Amino acid sequence: MNTVSTLSDRALARALLAPRSVALFGASDDAGKTAGRPLKFLRAAGYEGKIYPVNPNRRTVQGETAYQSLAELPEVPEHVFILTPTDTVLNAVRECARLGVKVVTILASGFSESGPDGAAREQALRELSRTTGVRVLGPSSLGVINPKAGLVLTANAAFAEPELPLGKVFVASHSGSMIGALVSRGKARGVGFAGLVSVGGEADLCVGEICAATLDDPGIEGYLLFLESLRHGDKLRAFALEAARRGKPVIAYKLGRSAAAAEMAATHTGALAGEDDIADAFLKDLGIARVGVLEALLETFPLARRIPLETDGAPPRQRVGVVTTTGGGAAMVVDQLGIRDVVVEPASQATLARLEAAGIAVSPGRVLDLTLAGTNYGVMKGALDIMFDAPEFDVVLAVVGSSARFQPQLAVKPIIDSATSRKPLAAMLVPDAPQALAALTEAGVPCFRSPEACADAIASVFARRAPGAQPAAGVAPAASATPLSEAQAYAILDEIGVPHAPAVTLPLEGPAGQLPFDFPVVAKVCSAEIPHKTEVGGVVLGIQDQAQLDAALASLRHNLAERAPGKPCDEVLVQPMTRGLTEVLIGYRVDPEAGPIVMLAAGGIWAEVARDRSIRLAPVSVETAREMITDVKALKTVSGLRGKQRGDLDALARAVSALSQLAAKPDLRIAEAEVNPLMVLPEGQGVLAVDALVLKW
Amino acid sequence: MNTVSTLSDRALARALLAPRSVALFGASDDAGKTAGRPLKFLRAAGYEGKIYPVNPNRRTVQGETAYQSLAELPEVPEHVFILTPTDTVLNAVRECARLGVKVVTILASGFSESGPDGAAREQALRELSRTTGVRVLGPSSLGVINPKAGLVLTANAAFAEPELPLGKVFVASHSGSMIGALVSRGKARGVGFAGLVSVGGEADLCVGEICAATLDDPGIEGYLLFLESLRHGDKLRAFALEAARRGKPVIAYKLGRSAAAAEMAATHTGALAGEDDIADAFLKDLGIARVGVLEALLETFPLARRIPLETDGAPPRQRVGVVTTTGGGAAMVVDQLGIRDVVVEPASQATLARLEAAGIAVSPGRVLDLTLAGTNYGVMKGALDIMFDAPEFDVVLAVVGSSARFQPQLAVKPIIDSATSRKPLAAMLVPDAPQALAALTEAGVPCFRSPEACADAIASVFARRAPGAQPAAGVAPAASATPLSEAQAYAILDEIGVPHAPAVTLPLEGPAGQLPFDFPVVAKVCSAEIPHKTEVGGVVLGIQDQAQLDAALASLRHNLAERAPGKPCDEVLVQPMTRGLTEVLIGYRVDPEAGPIVMLAAGGIWAEVARDRSIRLAPVSVETAREMITDVKALKTVSGLRGKQRGDLDALARAVSALSQLAAKPDLRIAEAEVNPLMVLPEGQGVLAVDALVLKW
Repeated sequence: MNTVSTLSDRALARALLAPRSVALFGASDDAGKTAGRPLKFLRAAGYEGKIYPVNPNRRTVQGETAYQSLAELPEVPEHVFILTPTDTVLNAVRECARLGVKVVTILASGFSESGPDGAAREQALRELSRTTGVRVLGPSSLGVINPKAGLVLTANAAFAEPELPLGKVFVASHSGSMIGALVSRGKARGVGFAGLVSVGGEADLCVGEICAATLDDPGIEGYLLFLESLRHGDKLRAFALEAARRGKPVIAYKLGRSAAAAEMAATHTGALAGEDDIADAFLKDLGIARVGVLEALLETFPLARRIPLETDGAPPRQRVGVVTTTGGGAAMVVDQLGIRDVVVEPASQATLARLEAAGIAVSPGRVLDLTLAGTNYGVMKGALDIMFDAPEFDVVLAVVGSSARFQPQLAVKPIIDSATSRKPLAAMLVPDAPQALAALTEAGVPCFRSPEACADAIASVFARRAPGAQPAAGVAPAASATPLSEAQAYAILDEIGVPHAPAVTLPLEGPAGQLPFDFPVVAKVCSAEIPHKTEVGGVVLGIQDQAQLDAALASLRHNLAERAPGKPCDEVLVQPMTRGLTEVLIGYRVDPEAGPIVMLAAGGIWAEVARDRSIRLAPVSVETAREMITDVKALKTVSGLRGKQRGDLDALARAVSALSQLAAKPDLRIAEAEVNPLMVLPEGQGVLAVDALVLKW
Repeated sequence: MNTVSTLSDRALARALLAPRSVALFGASDDAGKTAGRPLKFLRAAGYEGKIYPVNPNRRTVQGETAYQSLAELPEVPEHVFILTPTDTVLNAVRECARLGVKVVTILASGFSESGPDGAAREQALRELSRTTGVRVLGPSSLGVINPKAGLVLTANAAFAEPELPLGKVFVASHSGSMIGALVSRGKARGVGFAGLVSVGGEADLCVGEICAATLDDPGIEGYLLFLESLRHGDKLRAFALEAARRGKPVIAYKLGRSAAAAEMAATHTGALAGEDDIADAFLKDLGIARVGVLEALLETFPLARRIPLETDGAPPRQRVGVVTTTGGGAAMVVDQLGIRDVVVEPASQATLARLEAAGIAVSPGRVLDLTLAGTNYGVMKGALDIMFDAPEFDVVLAVVGSSARFQPQLAVKPIIDSATSRKPLAAMLVPDAPQALAALTEAGVPCFRSPEACADAIASVFARRAPGAQPAAGVAPAASATPLSEAQAYAILDEIGVPHAPAVTLPLEGPAGQLPFDFPVVAKVCSAEIPHKTEVGGVVLGIQDQAQLDAALASLRHNLAERAPGKPCDEVLVQPMTRGLTEVLIGYRVDPEAGPIVMLAAGGIWAEVARDRSIRLAPVSVETAREMITDVKALKTVSGLRGKQRGDLDALARAVSALSQLAAKPDLRIAEAEVNPLMVLPEGQGVLAVDALVLKW
């Protein structure tokens, strides 16, 4: 292996986003063509670095001198944008590496997404980067934009228009076309950008690494991510942790909510969890606000900046007070918040008294409706000031009606004048009121043009969790994992403190001796090679006495011979029959992208039909496990509701937390551990695993 | 009772929306004040009818002659807008009635929403309308707008701006401020209106009656409703049925999705159903597209017009084919459709072959991605034409990327040129592209500016059901309903054909004679006065023999004496113990607004925690009952999934349909009937009610 010098974050950020020289490999003379656009855009944007068009077939390109090859350039460009077809890419990158180019961006597609040839091409590309140190953006990258540097190094036709909106957020997107859409939508909404990158196929540089490289830039105060899936989780995790530490909010829109997940039906943890569920837990546990409404991707950053991540253990400060000049408009927002489980807090008696004393009439109800008081500056400002003082509100939301459109001095101005209030303040405008939105945005007040985006933004900011003590994601070894026998799995559970039903092993050949517990019992074949026992007839339930136990052994021997011939199995595991108030599934595994995760799910067939479960990055505290329990609807049936018997949810929380601690014990080499079912007994009687499947590396 | 002449629909529509004369009672000289606005707006809009300002305190109002009283006017105005405070309203309306005014609109609030005095005021108002025939809009109405007639008869400040956008849809809104918001948002979106009414408190005229009165207007092709709750269901039903018959789509945005419903926890049908669930079933069963995204309220009409209501029994034609110039943008829409259970159909091999033959390269996958083919007119038009011919697509959705913003000739123009395609065609634009949206809207192509509104519109149009054979809603008699005994309830079930477990009644005093079925049995007190038997210890389960039965009777006598003293009870109902594969709740009731409804819900405590149920207007066919079964997630556990035993879902569908037929038997005078639980036995063995509560008028 060669010694490869690696670019520092700073050097990477410069070569990628603020290079002093760029070469356009394969630049077209036709500025309307994809390969002609970057030159045109760079010139139009007034990029001040050197630009070297390279085109072996022409002397000039768009009126500029064209170079015949990269080697012929008067200097080694810092960044090369390769605009040529797929089959020419590898040679070009190789040449770049040879010359010492720092960053290469690849426009062409036709790599891993396009069959075995493409995959081989991508592998070669990755290898080239690894061995030479040349950093690669793409393939399928539409390029990078850094408005401050005039670097509009992109083939995205959307950048033909002048005047890129400048701002404080940096965009990284799996989709190249979305960076154009975000810019036009941002422009319409008064939102600007500090930079945008189309990351493409992430053969080398990925969302996490690129964003991390920009964290030192004081001009970048937050990040918007458009994700098609969760990839390069380790890098994304490292970036998110550091962004959280520095208080730079990260907002993500991720595709795949509907995904194939619904089509999956295995009870296996992985299959059950589905990729999007894991990605969702991953994002939230790393303090990333995942929005569900596209417009909220643009609108959420100012709100996320005003609402700091809750540090572990702090009581949630998520009670929203709503003040409005329009009852109907506010009701829409309250409704949208409600379906996202955000609490709209009514004013306290003390607050109502202060409003009355201030001469501000409000209608009774969940929101402070100023309709009776009339829409004017003094009323809105007075109400806001009283709300900022009111201890029952953590966040204040002002919903403004018709006046926002043409009389912003009435109810929008007082909000702008409260922009630096000590409590987070946001605004939603019910009419179409672009000027007022722009003024609020300009003043740094989080503001929204639809009730859905408003509620989505608030809910997604609240749903972030401060990154805890999770260890760095253990990268899954390439080796595949192998199952343990049930008896060996119980030994692991014993070691980490997850209670299980008493169990003894007997020789499969019999005869069965005296059991250390009473009948009735269950007998199960016990072999690392037979992870799915019921599929081979390897379980006999409801054994009532010694004679039935002997018969059961015989039956198991027979079934094994018939249905699992050749599988080594010497032992039978016997347990007392155990019934709980309910049963659940708890699972741990090391996801290739998200790292160690823990899951709690409703048990039995219900898990398959209702996707009723909670996932977090592992390990989790007992407290976090308690939150997971409240996430699982089926567990409400044993929460003491309506006089029904309460299950031992404390013991369940301890078991979930204990299982999750596998993440902190890499020496155990556990790839996956699933307890299914875990019986939840009545309060005070604990929980008991009655089956377990553990896979070890 | 007086003989009151009632206005015809046509006369009502004219007096309300196109009066030849209006009086402004209490018009203010200050055009900026609420009571001054209508005069200013009417003049600005060029209303050509007569306008009579009435103000006893002034000679002129805004430079026009003011009249001292209504009686003094030179003619009887057709429509009077009362702008004075609450306490003056009744006298003014009385005067209007005396003079023969046809329609009175009331701005003031302070009626039924404001305590007993207000309720009395509203009752008097209603009485006045009923006895004199004067029709009342309001109270709390911000007025009516009919742009064609220049009638901007409103106190809503939003109408200060000139140039109301003209269009083909009519708006009726519970919220007065929302009509202003819809106009400004419509303007920004290129959507215009044929009229808008702020219906306010609906003391007399309500959404349904007002809309129905306009159905003959050829200039009105569809309706947008902004509803705060379901009120005057009978009128809304009559309107919706007639609108459906005439092919005039109705789109509704209704508040209350989150509502107090989650706070309710009784197993009682009514409490369980929650108002929003019932309203939702009501709207969908009447062919109304209920949208969930505000913007979709404005955007859905053209789509609803292109997709006719499916008539009963026709196979659903809801397979969406997606074609796009942007992979990332289309993925957003596909994801949003997916979470709303809308099927995005991939192209068939035949369609792919036709595309290839036409030289249109598409990437493989769920959508027709034209990125490889390049964005130009021929490619998009060719792809659309092939999709219109492809039998696998019922609806075609084109998702257009960056080019939509500045080069609409490339991919938007071919969509516009396909506006009259024989298959419904819709477009979603990924960038901010107001001109292209306006052009598409102008051409009548359903088009959307966000993936959420696009998916919401499509899903809500698909979720409409053609109004079936439901009878007109039986208005609930004022008399309160009284419960039957369980034995009497079974007699009703026998009459309508809902199977129940065998049951015999025994004298409470005993001794119990020979039973016609085997032990074990259950014994329950049987009295119309004890509807909630378990609460008084009135149920003994698991009785194994004759001696235990006698003991059970003694125990029931004791419990009744202790816990229900004085309640008449002579009988005990005895049934065999019955267990099913699962248990459900089926219920019927006459909702005061929605009329007869039928519900199927998951049984047991699960119903309380998961709101897992399906509601329809009653009666329903067996086929519709089958759809309801697929709506209830818990029933997937007995649908034969993964080798689990299948329940008798055919029998369940028959039972639900049979129960719902109570709606067709008004002579039985059943207000409410709930079977809880209904045991679902294995396939072929039927279903069995093992408890029932029936309330009769």
